[in-house]
Amino acid sequence: MERVTIYDVAAAAGVSTATASKALNGTGRVSSETRAKIKQVAADLGFRPNALARSLTRKRSFTVGLLTDDTYGRFTLPVMAGISEGLIDQGVSVFLCAIENNPELAKTHVDAMLDKQIDGIIATGKRVDRSLPVDLTHLPVPVVYALTAGPDDAVTILPDDSQGTREAVGHLIRKGRRRIIHITGPSTFQVVEERAAAFFQTLQAAGLSSPQAAVLYGSWSERWGHEAVANLWSHDERPDGIFCGNDQIARGVVDGLRERNIDIPNDVSVVGFDNWEIVAEQTRPPLTTVDMNLKELGRQAGQALLRLVNGEAVETGMWRLPCTLVVRGS
Amino acid sequence: MERVTIYDVAAAAGVSTATASKALNGTGRVSSETRAKIKQVAADLGFRPNALARSLTRKRSFTVGLLTDDTYGRFTLPVMAGISEGLIDQGVSVFLCAIENNPELAKTHVDAMLDKQIDGIIATGKRVDRSLPVDLTHLPVPVVYALTAGPDDAVTILPDDSQGTREAVGHLIRKGRRRIIHITGPSTFQVVEERAAAFFQTLQAAGLSSPQAAVLYGSWSERWGHEAVANLWSHDERPDGIFCGNDQIARGVVDGLRERNIDIPNDVSVVGFDNWEIVAEQTRPPLTTVDMNLKELGRQAGQALLRLVNGEAVETGMWRLPCTLVVRGS
Repeated sequence: MERVTIYDVAAAAGVSTATASKALNGTGRVSSETRAKIKQVAADLGFRPNALARSLTRKRSFTVGLLTDDTYGRFTLPVMAGISEGLIDQGVSVFLCAIENNPELAKTHVDAMLDKQIDGIIATGKRVDRSLPVDLTHLPVPVVYALTAGPDDAVTILPDDSQGTREAVGHLIRKGRRRIIHITGPSTFQVVEERAAAFFQTLQAAGLSSPQAAVLYGSWSERWGHEAVANLWSHDERPDGIFCGNDQIARGVVDGLRERNIDIPNDVSVVGFDNWEIVAEQTRPPLTTVDMNLKELGRQAGQALLRLVNGEAVETGMWRLPCTLVVRGS
Repeated sequence: MERVTIYDVAAAAGVSTATASKALNGTGRVSSETRAKIKQVAADLGFRPNALARSLTRKRSFTVGLLTDDTYGRFTLPVMAGISEGLIDQGVSVFLCAIENNPELAKTHVDAMLDKQIDGIIATGKRVDRSLPVDLTHLPVPVVYALTAGPDDAVTILPDDSQGTREAVGHLIRKGRRRIIHITGPSTFQVVEERAAAFFQTLQAAGLSSPQAAVLYGSWSERWGHEAVANLWSHDERPDGIFCGNDQIARGVVDGLRERNIDIPNDVSVVGFDNWEIVAEQTRPPLTTVDMNLKELGRQAGQALLRLVNGEAVETGMWRLPCTLVVRGS
């Protein structure tokens, strides 16, 4: 398991380590013949230039850390995939640290990463209005925030929830829906308020009435989708279009409607949020839903971090990336 | 953003860099007074001993790589959490590399990690009978396989599918079920065959008839659960206990039964596999299912890798970790 070192290469080539080092690093004066010979010996031995040693001189480790409090990874995995995809060509690898809601664990991970001289950190999570349980504002490396709250003077990348909502509600209006309601999560979430505001604005702009009662707040669960349908269908004034705050609520709504023999999408159209494919595709009918393009969000977070690491200028503040409506059968 | 270096500490303390280095590394001869002073200066400046530099001398980087082809992360995230939890106390950080089914991408990630002198690799995936699309058998670092196929002379850690099946079927038998069937995934999956064999054995051991027709092979989807119920309920000979190959199939089965007004668990008991909580808990009634203890599996993979990195003996071959039945309402 011993690694081949520069000493082994030098010994095998019959030169000094200094000469071997110059030949392999392309620095200093070595004849092209000697350089070629040493490179051949290095290749034969399976010598791998030591990135750690190079990092020490270049002050770059080509590693970044991804901190997340999203245990199930529904949001973090696509973000991670985007970061990795955007950075691997530059030889950058990503440490993933799941810190749950544990400040001590978070600090341990951050310290371990700083010890390894990471070039920067991307903080990500499951709530855009909560910061991770660790202060990242005074680190010796740049930090980019994605899908979690960051300080005003940092780069924070979030989906454009208002635009995503306009796409969803606009779709329902174009389908001829006139009694549209919004069944969503707890009003304590910032995204819930943002989407509710955009929901009202879109209806008003289309000249459709929008009583306050048209937004129903609950939990992020299928159960709440079922409950909301049960409440709505116990009255005479029923919606013909339902925009849901996430795909789980939408799943409950669709199942609740089908159990009442309501035809989706002919009687009622339903749109979800998240495009959680494994659920959206298996919903009967398959769910039309808003995709937050989290992979692209991760890609941009990685690129922004790399620019900061390289000392390039990056516009701070909140970046909002557009969502995409994925039209399926509901 | 400039990091505080040993040179800064030496200058501020008014000593040579050699003395500063000796004092901070606890090597060489430095008076305890000078050592204390230099340590204080280092702390005041926020100096962080360079783990990269220490790695070079110790030949350890305290980093391991996790390679996975499981894009959605349902299986990889719990494994990752277990690895990380087991290793963070030792200062080990984990590179996560999602390689999908892309050999070129896999090689790029492995090369990038080897360049960074990782101590070892854990390969993980979504199928125990498929290896990742990259050859890991001739690397200069140890490799442990978890939830993916590995070579015979390596450590490969898998859930005990047979034991998990015995737990599930035993539970149905104890609930008084006598006409038990198994609705599962494609027969091309090794776990499908293993679980089917354990299913037959458990029924036979209990003196229950088990016709070959009692195992229905299909896809890993809700849709297949619905289809299977539709087929079964079009005949007179109907099961009173159903063991499903995963939670998505079980979800389809439970929904299909409820739509036929069949009482779960009084008329028919259903058990799933995976304990995918976000689905299992929202199933109506909440799903009884087999948990593969993937976090523990990850923890053991991390510990095994660490022992190999330290040159300690580790038993090679296939390790099977027990599953746990999680009893809910179905």
